[in-house]
Amino acid sequence: MNIPDRRIQEASNMIAFTRGVPATEAFPVEALGECAASALAKYSSQILQYDSFRGFGPLREFIAAGHGLQPDQVLLSQGALQIVDFIARSLITPGTTVLVEQPSYDRVIKVLRRAGATVVGVPLQEDGMDLTACEELIREHHPLMTYVISDFQNPSGTTMSEAKRGAFAALAEQYGMLVLEDLPYRRLRYAGDDIPTIQSMIPHRTIQLSSFSKLLSPGLRVGLAFGPQQYMDRLGKTAQDTYITPSLLSQATVFEFIDRGLLPAQIEKLHNLYRPRLSELLAVLDTEMADLGTWARPEGGFFVGVTLNKSFKAEALIARGLEKGIQLTNGRDFFADGRGNTFVRLPFCALTTDEIDEGVRTLAQVVRSL
Amino acid sequence: MNIPDRRIQEASNMIAFTRGVPATEAFPVEALGECAASALAKYSSQILQYDSFRGFGPLREFIAAGHGLQPDQVLLSQGALQIVDFIARSLITPGTTVLVEQPSYDRVIKVLRRAGATVVGVPLQEDGMDLTACEELIREHHPLMTYVISDFQNPSGTTMSEAKRGAFAALAEQYGMLVLEDLPYRRLRYAGDDIPTIQSMIPHRTIQLSSFSKLLSPGLRVGLAFGPQQYMDRLGKTAQDTYITPSLLSQATVFEFIDRGLLPAQIEKLHNLYRPRLSELLAVLDTEMADLGTWARPEGGFFVGVTLNKSFKAEALIARGLEKGIQLTNGRDFFADGRGNTFVRLPFCALTTDEIDEGVRTLAQVVRSL
Repeated sequence: MNIPDRRIQEASNMIAFTRGVPATEAFPVEALGECAASALAKYSSQILQYDSFRGFGPLREFIAAGHGLQPDQVLLSQGALQIVDFIARSLITPGTTVLVEQPSYDRVIKVLRRAGATVVGVPLQEDGMDLTACEELIREHHPLMTYVISDFQNPSGTTMSEAKRGAFAALAEQYGMLVLEDLPYRRLRYAGDDIPTIQSMIPHRTIQLSSFSKLLSPGLRVGLAFGPQQYMDRLGKTAQDTYITPSLLSQATVFEFIDRGLLPAQIEKLHNLYRPRLSELLAVLDTEMADLGTWARPEGGFFVGVTLNKSFKAEALIARGLEKGIQLTNGRDFFADGRGNTFVRLPFCALTTDEIDEGVRTLAQVVRSL
Repeated sequence: MNIPDRRIQEASNMIAFTRGVPATEAFPVEALGECAASALAKYSSQILQYDSFRGFGPLREFIAAGHGLQPDQVLLSQGALQIVDFIARSLITPGTTVLVEQPSYDRVIKVLRRAGATVVGVPLQEDGMDLTACEELIREHHPLMTYVISDFQNPSGTTMSEAKRGAFAALAEQYGMLVLEDLPYRRLRYAGDDIPTIQSMIPHRTIQLSSFSKLLSPGLRVGLAFGPQQYMDRLGKTAQDTYITPSLLSQATVFEFIDRGLLPAQIEKLHNLYRPRLSELLAVLDTEMADLGTWARPEGGFFVGVTLNKSFKAEALIARGLEKGIQLTNGRDFFADGRGNTFVRLPFCALTTDEIDEGVRTLAQVVRSL
């Protein structure tokens, strides 16, 4: 009875296209065990006592050094979503407008709305937001901020081009808008080259979010954000008033893992595990679904989002999918305007190539049958 | 620059009466290191992946079994304060009244107010709330709930008598009021016998909060709540929408510590460490401050709260204390109505008997000088 729904489903023979999660076999279990014990031995008085609301100091120093920041510009929390919640609670008042890509990460849309935000979607193209639409929406709604996942976007898999990042940064600058740039998948690039972040272009108006959930483990719940000091102080105050100090053992364990030099090999392992899964997904989409929809061709991340060219309610697709052995997320959840009935997010990291192959063939049959 | 203010202060020669924290030397560092490594080895697929928003299953099962509950009636989070925040966000709307003891835990008052609650203080007597005043305030304000720390109250050190618990439970029943009973210090009883909890009297209208912060370590951030299923589902939904899954490594580490049978000896160790500190505090208060104020004589917990019988602003006391080498918390923070200028909370667990002795002597001098 303690098993969450998702795990009950997983235990069945269903192919779960619902789970945007890492492959369980990728967790560096033994190393993390050693790192946790070692972190407790080395840092016990820091991590067992109440400490800074900003999180474990050495990990903040490491992150800050990598971005030319002060450690106090970094906030560590229980996953990046909780930091979005702090941002929402610190900066949003009822009626504040926030732009998001459309589609975007459903949980973030929910967190922003819970704080009273009006969330408006900017149509997403294969190389990032439609910037003409974006500027029109800025002029119409005067948004406080835009939430954007620049690399391997959730749920579409698109990556914003360098040209668009520059133009978007210029828009943010022109209209005095804050940018939340969420990059949990950035280091999961299986091909091609990194593109400069929006944060690197306009650091004075960007809060960048990231996480070790996709690189090491989600259950550790180590998310991070950095940005201008005045914003980080406001978020930090909200964090302090919520939990005094975040959960420090996980943060110190992650730091110890990094300090031992283990992260590059872990990321390489993930690349080698996930790259063929993405290739398989794109290949079977090409052979099975070319006439049924369109999708981006991501070079990394967790997802390929398919926009089907038929018309039906998401519920019909989901129900027929369950009958045939695949689980799908409701596409409307990703759309701020509630459209998205025919949008299907396909996560591939936690599925074998065989499951991906069978799952997409089933999806194609299901779509044809509707 | 990563050191929080409190630790900077601690590093000085000040005696910190500001810190309601465990003694750092009481942390079972080595055992926790072994438990963390062992938990990762045993439960890796549960604690490294996303899991239930309610928290680590085996620890919930253990807690539930101890109280005759279902495991899904237990919610684990990053400390009990975050659960109070979930309660506030789930159940409070602007204008909702919540009663608290006066004085009460300052951070909870803040969390309740942040959610829009009107927080009203019920005068605290040595054996718990003044129930005549409580009933009047219930009739006047129709509170949704009352937040009460029944054992070794923070900040006063008082314990609610069994008779008052029964009468208060009857009031809650009569007026249809929810009770939040926070018991982080319950197992830190250095003398005398346990008194039945309010939760045991009216389980259908009580959410009980507790934590491993005072028993094992605050930095692990393992707080818990249990109560009627419908409330726990609402809190759980808010938790899920905030962080998906709580930080699981700490929760599994705590479970492993319990599962190895180590908790009773750890608590016994704390009793033996803290008992003489409390005795020393009460003794030096008697010799140095008998004419300056009144206080409860707690049989456990972390605090003795002194109500001074002079009149001045808290700021004057704090400033003069700093000049003389003691740090004090602003007493007004504990009072919902902003009184409390002459209330002084004295935490004793993280101070040696020598520090307690010197600190109280200094406090007495400071008070006399005002």
